Amino acid sequence: MKIPSFESDYNNGAHPEVLRRLVETNPAQSASYGYDEWSESARTKMRQACECPEADIYMLAGGTQANATVIDALLRPYQAVVAAETAHINVHESGAVEAGGHKVIALPSHEGRMAADDLRRYLQRFFADPTWEHMAVPGMVYVTMPTELGTIYNKEELERIHDVCQEYEMPLYVDGARLAYGLMAEGCDFDLPWLAHHCEAFYIGGTKCGALCGEAVVFPKGAPKGFFTHVKAHGALLAKSRVAGVQFDALFTDGLYFRIGRHAIGMAMRLRDIFAKHGLELKPSPTNQQFVVLENEQMQQLMQHVLFETWEPIDDRHTLCRFVTSWATTENELNRLEEAL
Amino acid sequence: MKIPSFESDYNNGAHPEVLRRLVETNPAQSASYGYDEWSESARTKMRQACECPEADIYMLAGGTQANATVIDALLRPYQAVVAAETAHINVHESGAVEAGGHKVIALPSHEGRMAADDLRRYLQRFFADPTWEHMAVPGMVYVTMPTELGTIYNKEELERIHDVCQEYEMPLYVDGARLAYGLMAEGCDFDLPWLAHHCEAFYIGGTKCGALCGEAVVFPKGAPKGFFTHVKAHGALLAKSRVAGVQFDALFTDGLYFRIGRHAIGMAMRLRDIFAKHGLELKPSPTNQQFVVLENEQMQQLMQHVLFETWEPIDDRHTLCRFVTSWATTENELNRLEEAL
Amino acid sequence: MKIPSFESDYNNGAHPEVLRRLVETNPAQSASYGYDEWSESARTKMRQACECPEADIYMLAGGTQANATVIDALLRPYQAVVAAETAHINVHESGAVEAGGHKVIALPSHEGRMAADDLRRYLQRFFADPTWEHMAVPGMVYVTMPTELGTIYNKEELERIHDVCQEYEMPLYVDGARLAYGLMAEGCDFDLPWLAHHCEAFYIGGTKCGALCGEAVVFPKGAPKGFFTHVKAHGALLAKSRVAGVQFDALFTDGLYFRIGRHAIGMAMRLRDIFAKHGLELKPSPTNQQFVVLENEQMQQLMQHVLFETWEPIDDRHTLCRFVTSWATTENELNRLEEAL
Amino acid sequence: MKIPSFESDYNNGAHPEVLRRLVETNPAQSASYGYDEWSESARTKMRQACECPEADIYMLAGGTQANATVIDALLRPYQAVVAAETAHINVHESGAVEAGGHKVIALPSHEGRMAADDLRRYLQRFFADPTWEHMAVPGMVYVTMPTELGTIYNKEELERIHDVCQEYEMPLYVDGARLAYGLMAEGCDFDLPWLAHHCEAFYIGGTKCGALCGEAVVFPKGAPKGFFTHVKAHGALLAKSRVAGVQFDALFTDGLYFRIGRHAIGMAMRLRDIFAKHGLELKPSPTNQQFVVLENEQMQQLMQHVLFETWEPIDDRHTLCRFVTSWATTENELNRLEEAL
Repeated sequence: MKIPSFESDYNNGAHPEVLRRLVETNPAQSASYGYDEWSESARTKMRQACECPEADIYMLAGGTQANATVIDALLRPYQAVVAAETAHINVHESGAVEAGGHKVIALPSHEGRMAADDLRRYLQRFFADPTWEHMAVPGMVYVTMPTELGTIYNKEELERIHDVCQEYEMPLYVDGARLAYGLMAEGCDFDLPWLAHHCEAFYIGGTKCGALCGEAVVFPKGAPKGFFTHVKAHGALLAKSRVAGVQFDALFTDGLYFRIGRHAIGMAMRLRDIFAKHGLELKPSPTNQQFVVLENEQMQQLMQHVLFETWEPIDDRHTLCRFVTSWATTENELNRLEEAL
Repeated sequence: MKIPSFESDYNNGAHPEVLRRLVETNPAQSASYGYDEWSESARTKMRQACECPEADIYMLAGGTQANATVIDALLRPYQAVVAAETAHINVHESGAVEAGGHKVIALPSHEGRMAADDLRRYLQRFFADPTWEHMAVPGMVYVTMPTELGTIYNKEELERIHDVCQEYEMPLYVDGARLAYGLMAEGCDFDLPWLAHHCEAFYIGGTKCGALCGEAVVFPKGAPKGFFTHVKAHGALLAKSRVAGVQFDALFTDGLYFRIGRHAIGMAMRLRDIFAKHGLELKPSPTNQQFVVLENEQMQQLMQHVLFETWEPIDDRHTLCRFVTSWATTENELNRLEEAL
Repeated sequence: MKIPSFESDYNNGAHPEVLRRLVETNPAQSASYGYDEWSESARTKMRQACECPEADIYMLAGGTQANATVIDALLRPYQAVVAAETAHINVHESGAVEAGGHKVIALPSHEGRMAADDLRRYLQRFFADPTWEHMAVPGMVYVTMPTELGTIYNKEELERIHDVCQEYEMPLYVDGARLAYGLMAEGCDFDLPWLAHHCEAFYIGGTKCGALCGEAVVFPKGAPKGFFTHVKAHGALLAKSRVAGVQFDALFTDGLYFRIGRHAIGMAMRLRDIFAKHGLELKPSPTNQQFVVLENEQMQQLMQHVLFETWEPIDDRHTLCRFVTSWATTENELNRLEEAL
Repeated sequence: MKIPSFESDYNNGAHPEVLRRLVETNPAQSASYGYDEWSESARTKMRQACECPEADIYMLAGGTQANATVIDALLRPYQAVVAAETAHINVHESGAVEAGGHKVIALPSHEGRMAADDLRRYLQRFFADPTWEHMAVPGMVYVTMPTELGTIYNKEELERIHDVCQEYEMPLYVDGARLAYGLMAEGCDFDLPWLAHHCEAFYIGGTKCGALCGEAVVFPKGAPKGFFTHVKAHGALLAKSRVAGVQFDALFTDGLYFRIGRHAIGMAMRLRDIFAKHGLELKPSPTNQQFVVLENEQMQQLMQHVLFETWEPIDDRHTLCRFVTSWATTENELNRLEEAL
């Protein structure tokens, strides 16, 4: 019997419903490069889910790719993207944004979030500096929802960031690698249509939310000119686009994407209860990533029974550890974690 | 009843055996980023198939991505890649190689092939030119096997190209998007191990040879330092690497990859027979892409019954058309093409 | 007594008048980065010479730099620049345009010139190709005036190229590294104001036309947004901008730039007469670069007495040689060449 | 009578001795692209001054250009450069390093300096992080000497940084835009030969140290392969290389470069005395940039009589101001500053 794993939300296969559709559609022939029927259907369903009939949607294979491609499309060569210090693009993308020629300007991270006030203050100072034209010019803002640390933005926070962006005529781009888990988190006071109306681009994460691969980039007000070719120039165009199309079509049929989110959130909250019951310190997170402080010996023992990730040392005797749930997490796994504790 | 399609080798789903393995492995949990068990197994099998126990192998999502990533890893910033004029990287990759900073130097195409003599002559003249240091310096050679026009290299041709590369200390890189069809073509006098010993890098195409997505980049003598991070910086690292790992594992189990190649070649040769019987002019091609000259009216009529691509106008009254077979092509489809003719 | 040199138009120092101004202004203190008084004065004089009061003008240190910077500013990342095969950017800039991420699409060269008909045909075919979105998309046109082979465009040729550009909504950029010699050539039927009204950007070459360094990039209808920062991001911003400002101010005082052009053209025409008198074959060129066919033995002997460049072998016994005049070429040097012949 | 200016060290023309040599050599003809006699002579003199007979030296037009070109030559595409937060490449180069594809990793600044301990700790943690291969990999270290804040490194500090670099097999690159002022500063306990033996590359700043333009990049153990072409691909190759060659030849004749440094330092120390006498707070700086805290009203009044730069607000009533000396600063200017105070 396999060890329960809370290592990540990308160590499972596809959600059974997604897989079923891949199997079902496999015999059919189709056009490629996004022109297949399932991609078309998926785009229609996502436009409906976003209440954005005019949205342009492109499905790419991965998240780093989506970020690098979108950011390079929204900036001029001398412009930079502003992000929280802990942002995925600033830490865990091997410099893919810089490889495209753009600096990442890091603002302070508040439990993973950027603060609108920090952003405004930064931009005010930047453009007040008489030497600003000698610096990489902030040209867009990047936030993750939910953040790399499991936290979420609420409506007001995101709206205020968007207001600053509007004021400075900069697009706001939301990395939704785990969007399903963010939107379904307790305390999330907005939905997909609201999000679509408060940013210039975002992506609906597939890989971490039930698909085998695929992220759907949404431009609610239309994509930059030539984006199809831009995607290909970034090596991000899928030849057999059906692989992404079918999966997103399944994810946006009968609310599967949101059901996946709800399930994982439910499991994550049970996880919190279990840790709390054992008197363990938890970082605030309403989403599917839970960060808990373990005493090192306890951590070593727990590792014998359950898989999870060490995040960072806290002091000589304690370590912050990450436990992640997904569509695939079961009650049984939680029970076994509890036993192990 | 659906219209037979000879449009491309990427308008079908996955080969049933590949799909079966995706389904079978779906419930299992695994590591990511290439560390899953199926990726490991696939690499082992491909190393065996190449008789290259030391080879480094990385599975990426697509072909343009594989080319751009490998080429950028093998060159210094001021260097260029030499390719035939008709090469995929020179025509149909939206400038992805240039987006990585490198010029593509185009040599004459001989039915899609680069000639070793052209290459040597070019390099001799290049380095004899007193101004060569003011030009983008050729740093590697790119060939496709089979070529974009369906032709193949034989042992001698490829060996001579490799000899020139060795002489000028430049790596040779072989784009094998359709490698299965090339290796199984009549007249192909070499196999995977021979290929692996006559180039510095190549990729085993998955997308066009039975997979849903995925290309396996092989460095027979080891990858450049830091290639893992380089792949990620190009946005080409698959988080759920299992999606590629499982597929290549299936393709390299019981010789499936080669069976797929053989089947498509058999169908392609039958295609040639059918066209020849009707007195139609065919371009030389021993692989799964067949190019036939159709009179325009005949082409229009045929399009009612069979799907295929127009390649390029030949004169006012004739058009070169492309018919492609794959693992999915059936006798029935061929019969219906014949009826339609 | 030094050997007469016809090697290049950049093997002399500055025109004495330019040097005089550098000396004269040296003691004064000034602002930097283009805000010094001489840069301002030079811009005003160049705007007047172009009859373009609205023009934005930036002075950069060199030609390759100017080309790479301007092209990268006018294109989106997935776009390419169209140029004649012999274009400087396609041959002698070490891939600087590609280093900025852009493909150079090479059209046939007609004695160095691009033909409007070739351009239109290329663009028609490009956008008629159903796969065009998979290719690097032509986004601007680059021509040199005069060309690398010494020839010039006339009004009609350039106007027709510009018309095609307008039709396809692409900027036309003119590389004027030797503009002084082109505008003063016999047969040139346009002037600076006409040029400024028939392209979106061009540069007035300084280095080859009497300055020590410096090229003045002119955007007759205004520069792209953020161009100052873009220039700096390309490493092309001069801190002591006075070095370029003073020189261009001198070049555009009392018509010095045009006098330099006229002098070199006069010397070049005398050169042609001398070669013609000796029955030597000359390539057509009304500018300061003259290409003459020499018998190899004769070439070797001449090299004892006069410096010049071999351009390319014509056959086993003949070589095309280049003789270049500049503001510095003297009657005496011509006389000595004649003696040597 | 002109207002004394302490605005910058690049608002003067060339040192009279440099100018004299430019005038003197102007009539001579020469080869280009670094092959002229003065560039050769300058390289020889700089090699001697560095006691590095094997050094490769290239003279480029500007500092941002030199940094972007060298850094791109020393890194692989996925690698990053480590620098202090206040480093010129991290702040005032408009993202030129990122435009070349590389991330700048910012370490804490200690009055402008990087600390060897910070560097070691950062690298230890970086490579201890199990996810490091998903991050931009530090591949070289960049320091400025003197720093952007006027401070200098001593032998021990630089040696320890170099030791860390050696340990991690990363080149150390020293930006010497103001090297003359750094080497001549009181407290600088090393010289050019020592520096050349404790880094893999550095540049000897010309623009800010008496030249009109030009920075001499030195590779004490030899330049990376193909560096000439790399320079050209970065648009950084001077056609009339004499402009830099002559100037550096002059700067390294009879110790002019060091005399310039000494003079500016002398003037800067007098500046400190004047400010100290008036009870004004000075930041520690032994070089030609002096940072003094002025009360805002006093600052406004002083600006009527003397030119200088405001650096950053300290509080509502005080501003940090920068006063810079150079070879051109005179006793008379200092006297007038004192009067104004």
